[in-house]
Formats: sequence, C-alpha cells, structure tokens
Amino acid sequence: MSLDPQPTEILVEDAPPAAEDYGLSEEQIQEVQAALEAGEFARVEEVAQALHAADLADLIESLATDDRNLLLDTLGPSLDPEVLSYLVPAVRQDVIEKIGPKGLASALSHLESDDAVEIFEDLDEEFQRHILAQLPAGYRLVLEEGIAFPEYSAGRLMQREVVAVPAAWSVGETIDFMRTAHELPDDFYDLFVVDPKHKCQGFVPLSRVLRTRRPVKMSEVMDTDVKTIPFTMDQEEVAYLFRQYGLVSTPVVDDAGRVIGMITVDDIVRVIDEEAEDDLMKLAGVGESDLYGRVWQTTRSRATWLVVNLGTAVLASLVIGLFEATLSQAVALAVLMPIVASMGGNAGMQTLTVAVRALAMKDLSAANAMRFIGKEVIVGCLNGVIFAVLTGLVAYLWFGQPLIGVIIGAAMVVNMMVAGLSGTLVPLGLEKLKIDPAVASGVFLTTITDVVGFFAFLGLAAVFVL
Amino acid sequence: MSLDPQPTEILVEDAPPAAEDYGLSEEQIQEVQAALEAGEFARVEEVAQALHAADLADLIESLATDDRNLLLDTLGPSLDPEVLSYLVPAVRQDVIEKIGPKGLASALSHLESDDAVEIFEDLDEEFQRHILAQLPAGYRLVLEEGIAFPEYSAGRLMQREVVAVPAAWSVGETIDFMRTAHELPDDFYDLFVVDPKHKCQGFVPLSRVLRTRRPVKMSEVMDTDVKTIPFTMDQEEVAYLFRQYGLVSTPVVDDAGRVIGMITVDDIVRVIDEEAEDDLMKLAGVGESDLYGRVWQTTRSRATWLVVNLGTAVLASLVIGLFEATLSQAVALAVLMPIVASMGGNAGMQTLTVAVRALAMKDLSAANAMRFIGKEVIVGCLNGVIFAVLTGLVAYLWFGQPLIGVIIGAAMVVNMMVAGLSGTLVPLGLEKLKIDPAVASGVFLTTITDVVGFFAFLGLAAVFVL
Repeated sequence: MSLDPQPTEILVEDAPPAAEDYGLSEEQIQEVQAALEAGEFARVEEVAQALHAADLADLIESLATDDRNLLLDTLGPSLDPEVLSYLVPAVRQDVIEKIGPKGLASALSHLESDDAVEIFEDLDEEFQRHILAQLPAGYRLVLEEGIAFPEYSAGRLMQREVVAVPAAWSVGETIDFMRTAHELPDDFYDLFVVDPKHKCQGFVPLSRVLRTRRPVKMSEVMDTDVKTIPFTMDQEEVAYLFRQYGLVSTPVVDDAGRVIGMITVDDIVRVIDEEAEDDLMKLAGVGESDLYGRVWQTTRSRATWLVVNLGTAVLASLVIGLFEATLSQAVALAVLMPIVASMGGNAGMQTLTVAVRALAMKDLSAANAMRFIGKEVIVGCLNGVIFAVLTGLVAYLWFGQPLIGVIIGAAMVVNMMVAGLSGTLVPLGLEKLKIDPAVASGVFLTTITDVVGFFAFLGLAAVFVL
Repeated sequence: MSLDPQPTEILVEDAPPAAEDYGLSEEQIQEVQAALEAGEFARVEEVAQALHAADLADLIESLATDDRNLLLDTLGPSLDPEVLSYLVPAVRQDVIEKIGPKGLASALSHLESDDAVEIFEDLDEEFQRHILAQLPAGYRLVLEEGIAFPEYSAGRLMQREVVAVPAAWSVGETIDFMRTAHELPDDFYDLFVVDPKHKCQGFVPLSRVLRTRRPVKMSEVMDTDVKTIPFTMDQEEVAYLFRQYGLVSTPVVDDAGRVIGMITVDDIVRVIDEEAEDDLMKLAGVGESDLYGRVWQTTRSRATWLVVNLGTAVLASLVIGLFEATLSQAVALAVLMPIVASMGGNAGMQTLTVAVRALAMKDLSAANAMRFIGKEVIVGCLNGVIFAVLTGLVAYLWFGQPLIGVIIGAAMVVNMMVAGLSGTLVPLGLEKLKIDPAVASGVFLTTITDVVGFFAFLGLAAVFVL
C-alpha cells in the first residue's frame, strides 16, 4: 500500500478532513450567538440540529446563561435527549430545571439505562419521585434499581441491555436470533455465553462470530477467560481491568454470578478522564473542576483548602517566630530563608506526584515500595548536594559571609532529603490508611518541608552565627 | 431480571471473582521472588506462563534487576511477545538488551503493526538496522513506514491491519469473505466501506452486520458520518475525537482520503492515560513519570526544573532584599511574610489547574475565556477578603499591632486577586503562544504570586509602619 499523495486526483471537495474540521468551531459558536441575539431562531435551529449531540452539548456549555436559555427555548422538545448525557453536571442541572420533570422523564426513556441512571442519580429526591411517577413500570424499575447500587460501583456504570446467548446455540442460531430480536442494545461488541441459570461461561467477540461458520457451537468458539465484574466493584477497579486487559466490553454479574448487565469501553473512557481529573484537582486543592460552577460555589469550595493552607502557613510562621532574636540580628536570614523552603517544597512535590500517579495506576505496591523510597531519598540527597553548592555560592556572593553560604547549603541538603522521604512516605502512608493519597498529600508535604526548611536554616544560623 | 442473591445455590467454587482476584497479586510476586532465589525455575515458569501478558509485564516491572534477569533467563524464548508492548519504556529497554536483536526481531513479527512500531520507534538507529535486516520484506516495510510518520501522529498510532469492503457487496458476501479471509486483524469492531479507489465512504458496526439480512447491500446499512482521521493528526486530537463521539474504531486515511489503517479504542485509552500523566507530571515539574528510571537519570531530569525554581526563589529573595531596612526594624514582618506568598501561590495553583485541565479537554476556548477570567478574578477577590480578615486577626492577636493586621490583610487581597488573574492569563497566554500550558505555567505563576506577595506586604509595611 503506497502512501504517496496523488495531488492530481484530489478535488477540493475530496480533501480529507483536518483536525479542526471536527468538533464545535469558534465560528459556529459565534454564529449561534449572533443569530440568538438577532432573533433569527430558524437559523439557530438549523445549526443546532446539524450538530452531533456531543457538539450540541459543548455549544450549550459555552453559551452565557441568557443565550443558553434562549437556545433551549428555541429547540424546545426537539432537543436530542442524548445531549443531556454529554453535559457537565453543573450545566445539566440548569438545563433540567429549564425542561422540567415532564421533559426529563420523556428524555430519560429514550436513553440507554446507564446514561439514564447517571442523570437520574444527580437529581434531588423530590424531583426523582416526580420523574418516576411519569415513567412506565419497567423503566421505573431500571432507574430504581440503578440508584440502589453503591455510588461509583460497576452497578451504577453498567447498562442493563446486554446480549447473552445459551452455550448450546450454534453461530447460525445466534445470527438468526440477532436478525429478529428487537430489544438489542444500540452498540455491543461481545456476546456473552450463559448457562441455563444465566451464569456467565465465556464471551465471543462479534468479529469471531462473523468469521465462524454457521454450524459451529458458541461453546466451541467462546473465550472462557472472561473478566466478569461483580456489581459492587469500584469504578476505579473496573477501569483498571479494562486498561490492563484491553477490554472493549465485559459482563457485570450478581452475587450468584448471573449476568445482569454490561460495561462498555466508552463508559470507561469517561471514568478514566474523571479519575485523572480528580487526582489533578485534588493535588491542587480544588474539590472538582469548577469551570462551570457559580462564583459563590467556587469561592466556597476553594476556601476550604485555603483554610487548611492558612493553618500550615501559620505553623511555618510559628517556626520562624522561634528565631525572632536571631532574625533581628541578621536580616540576611530573612531574605534567604524562603529559598530553602521553596526548594524543599518543589522537590517534594515532584516525588509526591510520581508516587500519587503510580499508586493510582497500581504501579507502586508493597513489592517495590522500599526500592522506591530508597531511590527517592538518594535522588533527594544528590539534588540536595547540587543545590547546596549553587545556593551556598549565591548566598556567599550576595552577603559576603562564607558561613551563611555553608549554613544555607547544609539546610538545603537536609530539607531535600526530607522532601524525598516525605514525598514517598506521606502518600504510601495515606494509601495504607485508606485515605485518597491525592487529596491530602500536598498539605502534609509542604507543611513538612516548610517547617523543616525554616527550622534547619534558622536553627543552624542560631547555633553558628550568634 | 431479579437482583436477589440466592445464597443456597452458591457453592464456594461458584463465587464470582472479587476485585482483588484480577491482576497480579502481592502473593504471586513474592512467590516468584522466593522461587527465583531458591532456584526453583520450573515453578517460576509455571506461574509466569499462567499469567496474562499484561500481568507478566507487571511482574517483570516489579522485580529488582537481578531477579528480573533471572526470570528472563528462565523464560527464554518462551516469553510471550505481547509482554513487550505492556512494559513501561524504561523496563522494556532492559528486557530488549537481554533478549538481543534476534529475539526482538522474532517477537516483533508476532505483534500487530501498531504495537511493533511503538516498540521499534524507541530503539536507537543501529539497533533498528539490525532488526530490519532480520525481518521479511513485507514486515520491514511496515516498520519503516511506521517510523516515517511524525511522532505522536495518528500514523504512528494506527495498525495497518483493517477490514475494508466494497460498497457494492451485500451483507452475505461480506460475511462469506470474513469466513474465508486469513489476514484479518485480531480484533475489530467496525467494517469500513470503500469505493474502488479505496476512499472511505462509511462504516458499519459489526453488530449491525449481524443484525442485517444477507441480501442487504453494505451501502444501505453504512453510516456515512464516519470520522476519518488524516495520518498526520496529533494523537491528542485523535483522543479528543474518540472521547467526543464515543468511537470504538475509526479509519486512518492518506492525503487522498484512502484508508491506510485504523485506530482502536484500546490505543486511545493508552493515549488518554499518557496525556493525563503528562499534564500531571509537567505541572509538578517532573519530565515524565520516572518511577522506573535510574537514580542518576531521575536526579538529572528533576534538577532541570529545580534550577528554574531556584532562579524564581532568588528573585523572590531579591524582592525581600529591597526591604532589608524595614525588616531589621520590625522582625514580625519576616515571621508573617511567607503567609501572604503561600496563600497567593495556592490560590493561583487552584485556578491554574482548572484552566490547564479545561484547555486540555477543550472546555476552555475564546468563546468563554473572558467569562472564566472575570469569574476567577471575582473568586480571588472574595477569597482575598475572607482570608484578609482571618490573617489580619491572627497577625493582630499574635503581635498586638492592629496596623500589621491591616497591612497583611491588604496585601492578601491584592495577592489573591493577582493569583486569580495570573492563574487564568498565564495558561491562556501560553496556549496562544503554542507553548504547552501545563509545562511552564506553574513556574510563572508562583514567581508572580511570590514577588507580588512579598512586595505588597513589605512595601505597605515600609510606607505605613516606618
């Protein structure tokens, strides 16, 4: 197969799409904004209807509140229900308030069960009751059961629509069944083979069904190494399984091992994104990404972490306060002291971030923890020595006192070593205590490196300078 | 479908697996370690052969170098080639050195083209030549073309094995073709429909092929809204497409729009993990996760960022140095000054992290940038006022001077507002300049909040206290 482009053959309309041709463009957003403000609602509807549900969700998210409401009024009941499952929760709530319980009930009944449950679980109880009252009994049961599963569990994540076939069926019977069945899922990638009690015995990828001759039994071509997932499994564990074994779909089972649903990889991509975002936000002390949150909500949720940080900053100041007498005699110390604390904090955060990510990805465990700690302490020492020399020279040249250079160098080595040690021990310890290492590690770590940094530098100065 | 567990039916061996039953267990690692050290190589081989390739890769990664080499010697040529594609690059390099060019050439020829290219691209040129010399011509071409594509492009990511069928074929002809074809990919989820020039016209999910009667033409059931990917597209863009539209596989096309390969969702899960890890590591000033890196490599790569941090810390010290006279007259200032800088730095990092993530996920764009900046400045002001009051009170109670309380409060409001502003402007500006906002934002931001924090606090003190 040749890769040479053949420019003579290409007409303009034949050019393959470029990256910027996909997704919602700035121009489309501006066009809709302009049309909304000019009252050209027919134009708005035309643009919106042409969009994929995911892009329409992006459009709704990127509009200011007034324009958003105007757009929703324009679309009215013609709003594609799929859009709801693509919206971020904060914006989805606004949209749901706009379309009301009746509109939402109708929208939910058009979605696959996992998407419906995901939207339903965020509603307050009264709203949930309103919705349930408007749904047919079968659908009501799916939602009620859905939210009865633990939060962040496989049960919440799964869709109830699944194709399970008896092991005794042949490939031909299976294909015939699928050609006539009405209640199949929209998308599926594997068939699950079950025994008469509906217990999962194996799976057959659709590609294998298509490649096998009709008389062959499903039990002959099934893969028995099926990674069934108990409905109680945490979604982070489920994501690990998909990632580890490159799964595309896998059955969810009840306590007796019976297939009750399936999880597909598109849900897992969402979970992976969420978990990654979660770790990133927690490390920075943001509850969850509040891009779409209201000002006051954002202020309040950020303040929580800032209060903790204020506490630790005051603690560091208390340490400095111990050395007021020293400081009043050598102001140079006040000028230099933030350097030691800052270097320790940054070196520690490097180690910490590697540890938190490795724990999340299950790359760090009891088997290699000791080696990791040892390595990080050595790296801390080596960088400590390098930066002791650099900082010592800077301090000496600045203030002309060799002793200050030596003292800041010694404090640097101590603090960088402590940074390496606490950057590993803090997250490993929190993990052991079943506390999410992402959420609390940063506070502990910088408190330690600030306190040790100020104490080592000012303490050594108090002993040797005075 | 009922979810009631039926405990009377469950025998012990029927219990469905729990989360901890999947993946490599600590016990298995310890068992292999013990067997290796006791020289029970038959036992080692037995445990290793029973593992999934992904788990065997984890086992190899978690062993210390000596044990790792012993395990590789034990397995010898029976090592499953798939294992190579699951290893992290640092460990993979060790394994490749161990098995040599001949072993690697044989391993590569057993892998799908995307996995083979991924391993091949990391080798140095001489090693690559050695490998190529040992491969059959067809396979050689695939590797040579593979690494000719730009790094991190769709071309590198794709596999060449793909099922493309003519639009004129019926479902029956397609199924018959698949039953007899030999060179099909191991796993595939969609069939791509092409015209006589091999240009992509649409796709048909396998589930739809199975549900459709034999006489129906592929062109009648195909979805023409196919998201073809030019081979030059950046992998981050590709991941965005998969995520945005919930894709499972999609064709890669050349400049003329001809199908030359496909990308599947399992590769995208890897890309998403890599990109998330990348942002996390860059924000913390770690080049890339160096969990498996050697001590000296790790020390050196971390030192690069620490040098930058030293520069900014010295800059902050220079600002403090401007106020030596003030500090020598009021040591309380030296005790309190880190609080202002620390609070500004943390508030700014909160904003920055939200912005960096939103940019990566394409949630932040020109359309909503102004609204985001405005909101963050207001949040900064509000939290500034809250923490001005808190910190002012602490300072007043500690040192008994109301003026110091007022000054630290004023400095806090200024710094938190600046934090909100620079936490948004810095990443947006870097993005505009086509610099990865994750990599450089943190340095800029903390430099700004340190300098402004120290300057505002000490400057106000110099004016009003003295």
